Amino acid sequence: MCSAPAIDLNSDSGESYGQWRMGDDEAILPLISSANVACGFHAGSPAGILSTLRAAKRLNISVGAHVAYPDLVGFGRRNMDISSDELTADVIYQIGALQGLAAAAGTRVSYVKPHGALYNTIANDERQARAVIAAMLAVDPTLTLVALAGSRLITWAQEDGITTVAEAFADRAYHQDGTLVSRRERGAVLHDPQQVAQRVVQMIINGGVESVEGVFTPIAAQSICVHGDSPGAVEMARQIRLRLDEEGIQVKPFMQGA
Amino acid sequence: MCSAPAIDLNSDSGESYGQWRMGDDEAILPLISSANVACGFHAGSPAGILSTLRAAKRLNISVGAHVAYPDLVGFGRRNMDISSDELTADVIYQIGALQGLAAAAGTRVSYVKPHGALYNTIANDERQARAVIAAMLAVDPTLTLVALAGSRLITWAQEDGITTVAEAFADRAYHQDGTLVSRRERGAVLHDPQQVAQRVVQMIINGGVESVEGVFTPIAAQSICVHGDSPGAVEMARQIRLRLDEEGIQVKPFMQGA
Amino acid sequence: MCSAPAIDLNSDSGESYGQWRMGDDEAILPLISSANVACGFHAGSPAGILSTLRAAKRLNISVGAHVAYPDLVGFGRRNMDISSDELTADVIYQIGALQGLAAAAGTRVSYVKPHGALYNTIANDERQARAVIAAMLAVDPTLTLVALAGSRLITWAQEDGITTVAEAFADRAYHQDGTLVSRRERGAVLHDPQQVAQRVVQMIINGGVESVEGVFTPIAAQSICVHGDSPGAVEMARQIRLRLDEEGIQVKPFMQGA
Amino acid sequence: MCSAPAIDLNSDSGESYGQWRMGDDEAILPLISSANVACGFHAGSPAGILSTLRAAKRLNISVGAHVAYPDLVGFGRRNMDISSDELTADVIYQIGALQGLAAAAGTRVSYVKPHGALYNTIANDERQARAVIAAMLAVDPTLTLVALAGSRLITWAQEDGITTVAEAFADRAYHQDGTLVSRRERGAVLHDPQQVAQRVVQMIINGGVESVEGVFTPIAAQSICVHGDSPGAVEMARQIRLRLDEEGIQVKPFMQGA
Repeated sequence: MCSAPAIDLNSDSGESYGQWRMGDDEAILPLISSANVACGFHAGSPAGILSTLRAAKRLNISVGAHVAYPDLVGFGRRNMDISSDELTADVIYQIGALQGLAAAAGTRVSYVKPHGALYNTIANDERQARAVIAAMLAVDPTLTLVALAGSRLITWAQEDGITTVAEAFADRAYHQDGTLVSRRERGAVLHDPQQVAQRVVQMIINGGVESVEGVFTPIAAQSICVHGDSPGAVEMARQIRLRLDEEGIQVKPFMQGA
Repeated sequence: MCSAPAIDLNSDSGESYGQWRMGDDEAILPLISSANVACGFHAGSPAGILSTLRAAKRLNISVGAHVAYPDLVGFGRRNMDISSDELTADVIYQIGALQGLAAAAGTRVSYVKPHGALYNTIANDERQARAVIAAMLAVDPTLTLVALAGSRLITWAQEDGITTVAEAFADRAYHQDGTLVSRRERGAVLHDPQQVAQRVVQMIINGGVESVEGVFTPIAAQSICVHGDSPGAVEMARQIRLRLDEEGIQVKPFMQGA
Repeated sequence: MCSAPAIDLNSDSGESYGQWRMGDDEAILPLISSANVACGFHAGSPAGILSTLRAAKRLNISVGAHVAYPDLVGFGRRNMDISSDELTADVIYQIGALQGLAAAAGTRVSYVKPHGALYNTIANDERQARAVIAAMLAVDPTLTLVALAGSRLITWAQEDGITTVAEAFADRAYHQDGTLVSRRERGAVLHDPQQVAQRVVQMIINGGVESVEGVFTPIAAQSICVHGDSPGAVEMARQIRLRLDEEGIQVKPFMQGA
Repeated sequence: MCSAPAIDLNSDSGESYGQWRMGDDEAILPLISSANVACGFHAGSPAGILSTLRAAKRLNISVGAHVAYPDLVGFGRRNMDISSDELTADVIYQIGALQGLAAAAGTRVSYVKPHGALYNTIANDERQARAVIAAMLAVDPTLTLVALAGSRLITWAQEDGITTVAEAFADRAYHQDGTLVSRRERGAVLHDPQQVAQRVVQMIINGGVESVEGVFTPIAAQSICVHGDSPGAVEMARQIRLRLDEEGIQVKPFMQGA
């Protein structure tokens, strides 16, 4: 870390599909530093993805492959007991497709962030985690993996020589052991933009947040995920940027080092 | 052309999908020099494509992106009046996905050969042809385009700076103006392996074949397409190789020059 | 027609897909009398379709199968040169799927209205038109076909014993020969709710509208299509209902006779 | 059971997809009495399904909806943690689509047999089982459910008023508690047609088979599943029919009673 504190803000994007819109990429992208771009398996059709990548290029923000299970109708949010070989090939295919579109947009894919059910599963499921890591090694070993702070995935990836970035969630409640409060529990998701912005500042300055149990929980995060597809997402991202500016915290891609 | 005559033989491959088999890649690939590999839009699922690419790598044959309309159930054989922007993005996506899988297999994508209805349409439809050419230029301008010998597509691609390879069909009848006899007409497709093998030799040695009108038709082809998915395809390819060997004609990828 | 004038208003619905929303069924359905419900080929996933059908049942409005080409990413708006056998089977499949969901919702499918490119194509293409008609005859010959007023499709369907309903478009400009002004021309689509509402009244009371050439054009329509997915669609539908109420024109499904 | 012993033989069919073939419906259908027909979610495209249904009609055999998870590339063989509402709607959609095509073929859907991962999951997972049962009740409560003999699914279905048929597998090894030997274990699948045919006779005459533990296991089955898609499937089905004929055991749909 250099003298001026800095943080990466990442957000899902490119999640429209054909005529269907999702998220407001035009509004969110200028507020973040890393765009997790859908690759067509849970969302994203080629022309729309390309348009998102061109915006990312124009704004000079990092691009990551938001790889997912092959489940368009379920938006990649349903667990699948996919074989390791299939998962590895599916992830390579998605990264490659995004690399092609990124090249066409004059940019490149710097990192991989798994989406939805795949994200949650490989945080703890070693077989599927290793299949995703194998895909990254096979297609481009210099790709960085964005993973849940404190998850076992980070250890597995590092064992295999993959650079990792730990991420925290701006609008999620944490337990004192650093795990996320399940979405099924009340209070799991925070909705007040100012409160969320304040937690982001806390995460960066203090290296953690207050847990639902009331005690401080350290969270070692190099990137903070800002949601882009919920109502109020843009307003929340604006508040976060405002507070970061007030605190003199720079927002820049983790890929640029410090 | 060097002193020893040589030709490229290309064939469609990687066209299985999930549990469904199509073609016999294991048997066909050793007989050809360039594999047109499905990219997932008309056929090909990632794990199967990867397996085909590994075989191509092992056999040291060239790999091409067999790009198609997004029409799995129709196997890419139905015309679609897709917009130029969508077509360009779809083709980039497919090339990129195959590039990713090719990298994982230790090989690379050298050329693009459009599939089915897209192949036929862009031979003559300038708008869609330019959209495919734009995709190649955007993702990798060094890609070669394999196109129907004598088609306008070859001119358009060359105008835009794309290297082209003209191809002829081993098992198709030709009119005296060099166009293919429509599949709807009797005798359009030849089925006798020995006759087909003889025509291939004729194309290479004489630079043309006898047309259905009975006169010699010049066909300037740098690659000859051998079908891989019909019954008897493997036997036909074997006969062609046998005859080429007898004539001292080398089979090698057009990409290696001469 | 009974003493009190009446008209059917139809609108597309059920066009969300998984997590992606399209149209505002909750707002549009109460304003119309016939819901053209997507069947999964251009739009509509089963759980969402079922929810739309339950709303249609609750509101006691007619349900039609909004059948389409198999083209989710293109929203059924791209022409496809599909074979007759495939088209017939595709349409049967879609009608059947919607019948199953309609039964589960306590309602039934009364009519078929082709969507998008299929709608436009079969207005004039006899081969594809006959394939759609064959599907209706095969699955349920009592189904009514909603077709463009003045189109040849109406004649073909009647020849084969299918009941037809001619429809006009509330927000489209007409030529003096009764054909629609192409969307590619300026002024093809009308955006002012009050003007559109007034034209609807004119169509019902006068049996036609003023064409872009400035002369009155007769349009024999038993149903009027109100768009549900564009911005301002709900406001336009409200205006139409308001004007119809003022004129004492009842809105009711064509299926209920008069 | 009447004086002459009888059994139902069921087999998967309609599992081709577009240009891809799977199974040999022409050869298998004449040997069985109930066809489990794919509905498009794991396999089966409309024109192919219709063709299978016409063959079933011609042969006067029963038709069942072989409903599955929405997973074409995985052939419905991968578990998915789908929500109950989505699963119910997906199953209704599939049954309805098959009903439509069956009507077009002059036949009807008599039963439902879940496919692949869904079959295995709902044998024991009550939430998903109830979602499938709810679908059957919603679309047609007279549909029969074919389920694994001895599974909890049979109890749940009967509790909800659904008629059930217990099935055994001709070519699978059983444990002494009546459960199937996992496919991951050696000897789980039997390949010798004569041995398999003998076991089928044993199941019918003796009401059970010898388990892998060496003791007799009772299996109360009203239908026996014969695989249609593996190599040797047709030969195995022929042997089974031959042995049943020798023993004077009639093959007829369970739907026809006895």
